[in-house]
Amino acid sequence: MGIVVQKYGGSSVADGEAIKRVARRIVEAKRDGNDVVVAVSAMGDSTDELLGLASQVSPLPPARELDMLLTAGERISMALVAMAISDLGFSARSFTGSQAGVITDSVHGKAKIIDVTPGRIQSAIDEGHIVIVAGFQGVSQDTKEITTLGRGGTDTTAVALAAALDADVCEIYTDVDGVFTADPRIVPTARKLDTVTYEEMLELAACGAKILHLRCVEYARRYDIPIHVRSSFSHLEGTIVRGSIDDQAHQESTMEAAIIAGVAHDRSEAKITVVGVPDKVGEAARIFTALADAQINLDMIVQNVSAAATNLTDISFTLPRSDGAVAMAALDALQDEVGFESLQYDETIGKVSLIGAGMRSHPGVTAKFFASIAEAGVNIGMISTSEIRISVVVSEIDVDAAVAATHTAFDLDADEVEAVVYGGTGR
Amino acid sequence: MGIVVQKYGGSSVADGEAIKRVARRIVEAKRDGNDVVVAVSAMGDSTDELLGLASQVSPLPPARELDMLLTAGERISMALVAMAISDLGFSARSFTGSQAGVITDSVHGKAKIIDVTPGRIQSAIDEGHIVIVAGFQGVSQDTKEITTLGRGGTDTTAVALAAALDADVCEIYTDVDGVFTADPRIVPTARKLDTVTYEEMLELAACGAKILHLRCVEYARRYDIPIHVRSSFSHLEGTIVRGSIDDQAHQESTMEAAIIAGVAHDRSEAKITVVGVPDKVGEAARIFTALADAQINLDMIVQNVSAAATNLTDISFTLPRSDGAVAMAALDALQDEVGFESLQYDETIGKVSLIGAGMRSHPGVTAKFFASIAEAGVNIGMISTSEIRISVVVSEIDVDAAVAATHTAFDLDADEVEAVVYGGTGR
Repeated sequence: MGIVVQKYGGSSVADGEAIKRVARRIVEAKRDGNDVVVAVSAMGDSTDELLGLASQVSPLPPARELDMLLTAGERISMALVAMAISDLGFSARSFTGSQAGVITDSVHGKAKIIDVTPGRIQSAIDEGHIVIVAGFQGVSQDTKEITTLGRGGTDTTAVALAAALDADVCEIYTDVDGVFTADPRIVPTARKLDTVTYEEMLELAACGAKILHLRCVEYARRYDIPIHVRSSFSHLEGTIVRGSIDDQAHQESTMEAAIIAGVAHDRSEAKITVVGVPDKVGEAARIFTALADAQINLDMIVQNVSAAATNLTDISFTLPRSDGAVAMAALDALQDEVGFESLQYDETIGKVSLIGAGMRSHPGVTAKFFASIAEAGVNIGMISTSEIRISVVVSEIDVDAAVAATHTAFDLDADEVEAVVYGGTGR
Repeated sequence: MGIVVQKYGGSSVADGEAIKRVARRIVEAKRDGNDVVVAVSAMGDSTDELLGLASQVSPLPPARELDMLLTAGERISMALVAMAISDLGFSARSFTGSQAGVITDSVHGKAKIIDVTPGRIQSAIDEGHIVIVAGFQGVSQDTKEITTLGRGGTDTTAVALAAALDADVCEIYTDVDGVFTADPRIVPTARKLDTVTYEEMLELAACGAKILHLRCVEYARRYDIPIHVRSSFSHLEGTIVRGSIDDQAHQESTMEAAIIAGVAHDRSEAKITVVGVPDKVGEAARIFTALADAQINLDMIVQNVSAAATNLTDISFTLPRSDGAVAMAALDALQDEVGFESLQYDETIGKVSLIGAGMRSHPGVTAKFFASIAEAGVNIGMISTSEIRISVVVSEIDVDAAVAATHTAFDLDADEVEAVVYGGTGR
C-alpha cells in the first residue's frame, strides 16, 4: 500500500459544496487502497479577508502576528475537509503545520522548510486515518513560533510531506487539466503535456506559468518526488513532472520527442533603464548593490556597449512591477554618487519565453523563435537565455501575438481545442 | 510590579474599531505599571459563523475537528488585538491555549482545565511584552489534542491564567458596569454591588445571572483570585468578587451590610411532571437514573407527598429547555417499566431566586420573600432552597413582577437609576 499526498488550493475548498467534492475525491484515493495525506490551502478569499481585518487595526502589523492570523485560514479549511470526510464514513484527522512537524526557519511571512518530522502524522496513517495537513505554515526550529511559507506555500507543504513520508506521488489539484504548451486563454489550441522535466517546469514557473510555484518544483527535484498536476474537476490524467534533462534515460526518450515544452509569458514585470552611466569599473556594481540592499529581485539585465564617443553606457533590467517604486527611489538616491544621466521606467512590457530541454541539441531554435516574433510584427526589446530557455521582452500589448506565433511556429498547436479552464484565475 | 489579567469577550472585539478600543484599554493598564496578560474570545458572531460552515459539510461533525475549527476564532482575534497594541507602540505577543500551557482533559467541546504551565508566557512577560492568550481553548494532557472549554470558557481561561501567574486581580470586561442586585432591564433601580462573595456569585450565576459563568467563579474561589467585573465602555469601578461567607472578616464586615446580594431570574428552564408514580422504593431512582443516562442536568426536584388513598405520587423537576425533548423521550421509554400514569411538560415557567449570605443569620427572609411575591399577585409553583438562596418557580409571564416586588421588599432599590447596559445582550 503506497502513500499518496494530495494538495488542494483555495479555489478547490472555496465553500461547503467545494469541500464536499474534495472530500469525495480524497475518499476515492483511500478506497483505491492508498494511504492518503492531504495539504489544503485556506478557503477561497479568506486569506484576503484576514489581511483586510489586519489592515483595519494596524497599517504595518508585526510579521509574527500576521502569521498567527493567517494560519487560522488553513486551520478552518482543514477541519472542514476532515469533517466532510468523516461524513462519508471515513476517519480523518487534521493537523496544523506545527503538529505535522513542518519545521521552518524563523523568517515570518516567507519561511523556508528546513525539516519535516512526520511522527505524528505517520502514527495517524498507521491507525488508518486519512490525514489532513494545513498548508502554507510551519513552526520555527529555534523559537517555536508559528510561521508561514509565503506564496505557493501549500504546494511546497505537499511536496515536503511527500518527501518526508516517501510517498509514491504528490498530486497537485488545480482548476486546469495539467501543464499546457501555452496559456489556453491565449492559445486555444495549446496542448496538455503528459510529462515535463523538473528543469523545464522550473523555467516555465520562473517565466510566468502560474500552475506550480518555483519552490515546490525545486523541492520536488531535490527529493526526486514525482508531481502529478491535475484537475480537481475531472478524472483526466494531468501532467507528470519528473526526471532530469541530464538523465540518460530522459535524453534517449526525448530524442524523438518534442524539442520544446512550451511557451510561457509574464505580464508582471517592469523595465528600468539607467541612462548614461559612466563606463568605469565598479559603476554597475554600485547600482546593483543598491538594488540588492533594497531587497529587489532583478530578472533580465542588459548592458549596452559603451558608445565610444561619450564613454557612457545604458543599463536596463526587468523587475517585479510591485518593486518598481522602491527600486526607482533607491536609484534616485544614487544619482549624484554614480553620475548617470537619467532613469526610465516602463510598466508596459511583457516577457515571452520559449522553454525546452531539446533546444540544447537542436541548433536554430533561437533563429526560428526570433523569426516567428518578427513575422507577427512584434519588436523585441531585450533578450536573455539559459541552457533550455530563451526569453524576450516585448510591448505588453504584443504578448498575445508573440505567444501565438511562437506556439504555431514550433508545431505545438493541437488539432483541436483540448484545454478546459474550470476556474477564473487560471491557476 | 503586579500582574493584571484581563478578559475581553466576543462583543468587546467584534470589529476593527472595537479591537482598537480594547488595545487602548490594555495599554492603559501597562502604562499604569502592570504586567498585563489578556484572554480574548472570538470576534462577535464568528463562532456561530464557523459552526454554520461545519453544518454545511457535516450534520454531526467529529468533536475533535469541531474543536480544531472553533479554535481558529480566538486565533484570529488574539492576533488582531496584538497587532492593534503594536500599532500603539507597545510590544504584544499572542499565544494559543496550547502555547500558553493551558492543559486540559480530553473531553472535546467541554474540556476542563487540569493544569496551567505558563513558562512561555512568563518568559514573554519577563521580556516586557504584553501577552494575549486565546481564550476558550487548551491542549489535552494525554493526547496533545486541541480542546475547547465550552460555555464561559474564556472567563475560565482568564481566571486560570491569573491563578497560575499569581496575578493581583483578574479583570473581566463586559458590557455592563458590574454585578447588579437584579437585571437592570427588569428593575431600572437595581444597584451595582461593590463586592460580592464567591458563594453568592456562584448562586447568582447558577440562578440565571449571566454576567459570570459558574466554572470561572468556582475556579476563582478555589485559587482565591479576586475577580473585578467591569465595563469595557467606561472607567467606573465595577464589582469585586472575593472572599468567602465563612471568613471571619467577611462575617464581621457584613454584620452591618446588606442581608441580600441580589435577585436573579432564569427563563431558560422547563418543568416536567411525572404523574402517578407508584410510591415504592426505587421508582424515583429508576426515573432519575434514566435521565442521568440521557445526560440531562436537573435543577429543582419536588416530590409531592403520596396520596394515601391511591399510593401514587407525582414527581416534578426543572431542566434546561434545550434538554426537554431528550428528557421526555427518555421518560416515555420508561413508562411501561415504572408504570407511571402520564407526563406533563411545561415550557412557560420562570425561576426567581433571592441570594444573600446574610439570610443565614436573619430569620424571616423566606417569609418576607414569599409575602412579597404573593402581594404581587404571583402564584408559586415549586420551591427550593440552599444555605444562602431561595428559589421559586412561577409562570414565565410573572417573572418580571416577582423580581421587581422582591427587589423592593428587601430595600434593594437605588434612589436613582444607575445601571447602564451598553450592549444588547445583557452579558
